[in-house]
Amino acid sequence: MNRESYTRRRNALRERLKGWVLLLGHDEAARNYGGNPYPFRQNSHVLYYSGMTRPGVALLLDMESGRDRLYGPKDCVEDVVWHGAQPTLAELAEGAGIEDVRSITQLRSDLRDIGDPLHYPPPYRGETCLRLMELRDSSADEIRRGVSKDLALAIAASRNQKDEAEIAQIEEALGITAAMHQAAMAMTRPGLLESDVAAEIQRIALSKSRAQSYTPIVTVHGEILHNVTYEGELEAGRLLLNDSGAESVLGYASDITRTFPVSGTFNERQRAVYEIVLRAQKECIQRIAPGVRYREVHLHAARVIAEGMKDLGLMRGDVDDAVTEGAHALFFPHGLGHMLGLDVHDMEDLGEDVVGYEPGQERSEQFGLGYLRCARSLESGMVVTCEPGIYFIPALIDQWEAEGRHRSFIDYETLRSWRDFGGIRIEDDVLCTDEGHRILGPSIPKEIADIEAAMQG
Amino acid sequence: MNRESYTRRRNALRERLKGWVLLLGHDEAARNYGGNPYPFRQNSHVLYYSGMTRPGVALLLDMESGRDRLYGPKDCVEDVVWHGAQPTLAELAEGAGIEDVRSITQLRSDLRDIGDPLHYPPPYRGETCLRLMELRDSSADEIRRGVSKDLALAIAASRNQKDEAEIAQIEEALGITAAMHQAAMAMTRPGLLESDVAAEIQRIALSKSRAQSYTPIVTVHGEILHNVTYEGELEAGRLLLNDSGAESVLGYASDITRTFPVSGTFNERQRAVYEIVLRAQKECIQRIAPGVRYREVHLHAARVIAEGMKDLGLMRGDVDDAVTEGAHALFFPHGLGHMLGLDVHDMEDLGEDVVGYEPGQERSEQFGLGYLRCARSLESGMVVTCEPGIYFIPALIDQWEAEGRHRSFIDYETLRSWRDFGGIRIEDDVLCTDEGHRILGPSIPKEIADIEAAMQG
Repeated sequence: MNRESYTRRRNALRERLKGWVLLLGHDEAARNYGGNPYPFRQNSHVLYYSGMTRPGVALLLDMESGRDRLYGPKDCVEDVVWHGAQPTLAELAEGAGIEDVRSITQLRSDLRDIGDPLHYPPPYRGETCLRLMELRDSSADEIRRGVSKDLALAIAASRNQKDEAEIAQIEEALGITAAMHQAAMAMTRPGLLESDVAAEIQRIALSKSRAQSYTPIVTVHGEILHNVTYEGELEAGRLLLNDSGAESVLGYASDITRTFPVSGTFNERQRAVYEIVLRAQKECIQRIAPGVRYREVHLHAARVIAEGMKDLGLMRGDVDDAVTEGAHALFFPHGLGHMLGLDVHDMEDLGEDVVGYEPGQERSEQFGLGYLRCARSLESGMVVTCEPGIYFIPALIDQWEAEGRHRSFIDYETLRSWRDFGGIRIEDDVLCTDEGHRILGPSIPKEIADIEAAMQG
Repeated sequence: MNRESYTRRRNALRERLKGWVLLLGHDEAARNYGGNPYPFRQNSHVLYYSGMTRPGVALLLDMESGRDRLYGPKDCVEDVVWHGAQPTLAELAEGAGIEDVRSITQLRSDLRDIGDPLHYPPPYRGETCLRLMELRDSSADEIRRGVSKDLALAIAASRNQKDEAEIAQIEEALGITAAMHQAAMAMTRPGLLESDVAAEIQRIALSKSRAQSYTPIVTVHGEILHNVTYEGELEAGRLLLNDSGAESVLGYASDITRTFPVSGTFNERQRAVYEIVLRAQKECIQRIAPGVRYREVHLHAARVIAEGMKDLGLMRGDVDDAVTEGAHALFFPHGLGHMLGLDVHDMEDLGEDVVGYEPGQERSEQFGLGYLRCARSLESGMVVTCEPGIYFIPALIDQWEAEGRHRSFIDYETLRSWRDFGGIRIEDDVLCTDEGHRILGPSIPKEIADIEAAMQG
């Protein structure tokens, strides 16, 4: 990324909008008091349009003149004493191709001078909302109502298309992520805790001064989809699901899942289910190409999974009918994937439908399909995750059985002996190209033989 | 901690206040969008008065009847699917000795019913401020003006006095912290990066499912006081400063600093400066006892440091005069320490002066002494950090020399060959006892011979 690319991106916004765009950077985020913040992460739009990593800055972009402004805290000598020498605000601005640098204290009166329309994205941190309220003399409700849908669509149109430098960033992140996943496979053995593995993969990222792009899921209970505690013991006979990814130096995400047996060898049932998930994932990746709707790819995964569950005697009846009615979602209750970029769910702050759905494309209300974050027609330059999974979720099984749900497709009787299986997910990050697709990053073992070999050390 | 101790703490509050107390727990803190939060940390007052670790709860304490209320999100079956089985809100409340459990959606109308006075502490997260604004139909300014100083004083009076269970928590945290510091010493060698060490100490905490109580400082530039990047190389001849601590299972902090030579052996200058800091630290710890003002202990550290700098030919003139005028602060620009408890700077959200200063005790405006967080008279049960340091900060030296500051006490000429020395800090966590004091936690090498031995492995 260089000043030309930041300028080009801001110019692309100018082709889609009139008026002014205000992008507020993040302040430090208080953990248990103001002076003890979480590790700083800049707002992704500010990163995308300027690369600024300093807290407390704001971009005010003039859609007419092209004379964009950077607002920030004054450089002061005390900072040098407490934080060491830093580039000045003016130097940072130059690196982003911005010439007009002003004090953040001036932003409020400047906003009064420029008039409307002022576009800003939805504030997702309380501090940002409070700052907007103060800058605009508005209530929280007024700020929420004033969010610019046009801006969200314009940003999504640009950021959905990754350029070469962005792909290189994602692949840089994936290089570290591959090391994290290989280390997890190599160290896993009965008697350790989930936390031993989670701690080691975070060590690998941090030793390269890289953050995690999200809180890792490292669990022997893969069926608990958002499990972010690590207190479980690695018992022989269970599977360990590792869903984790590092951030690149410029803040780009990666997002990889692998699932492997604690003992180092898949047992018969694990092998059978794993092969279904793997087949679904590989066939879905094969289908990624410009013009293909990701909703259709998701439904292909659902069919492969339903077919596999039928082979195992856990489902029955017509596979297409089962998928149409959503019966497979007992085992595959989430979506196939999402956009990936500066955010692991790219631009989720703008609204999932803005990013992952086409105008007029309705989101399903069916359990399972309704969780699909990316349903739209793919274009060359988009990066999506492809992450089918099969889970045995006792609470969900009990609920469905009690309600008699999809009884014609699901064999609840046979299912009883599978309740404690756990869950399997396999996830890669895939670039849609003119020719079709390319799996990003170095190869990370996902064939059963390769995983078992990696676990031998 | 059990239901009796939480009840006892809430009853202690009732002896000091009338009306009602509202303590809002934390929500998840968004990192780069709402769905990608930082690791959850509960508000420390909520932890202290209830032990609740669930996001989105609130405590409403009735200072008259003693019938305290817990408000929280409804338990729902979807949570079980996505997050696994959790204790119900009612079960959590029981563990805290609270019988009255209500839906968080009811809080707003309940607040209208109970009337005033309603005490709440200063909101330090934007989300908390927004929630208070909505609950009270108030502006941000009104919320800030409505903060209860009486509540802050009442909380500080209780939380400043640690009971046995709290001391045990701090010592539990220190057990992990000791392992972190010993590992850092054992692994440090030329050629590694700061990030290798920072990553390893975080791995040790995380492998026990423990958070860091603050972002660690691991740097060969100890003179940059708040340096939280880790990109420096460990070069032979430099010192590595490691200021880091784990949190206990219930959220109690620890805060330890050690400084040691990258090469494994102190050179002559390093040894000389280290011995000054160590003498200051040990003599200050010796002085900790009930009735002693920590401001006086700080000034003792300042005198030991000024004396030592005089012996090295870097300062001159009368030591007491130098300290009175603040000349030593060129080398020791920060305070000797702060209260430690559920927060690493305990209760800093309530205001440093509320916690660390007595009513009427004025905070100094002198550079250095003005940064002292704890100046008050110590009492048995208080836990303070004791952390003197000596730093050679080129930007500060240049500034003072250019301004001709304290020229009669500082030998700027001799100082020239020391500019690149770096910085040394030694820090322990100390309990004030009836008998005097006790250094908490396991012993961590701090004598030169012990450090050099620990670095041999």
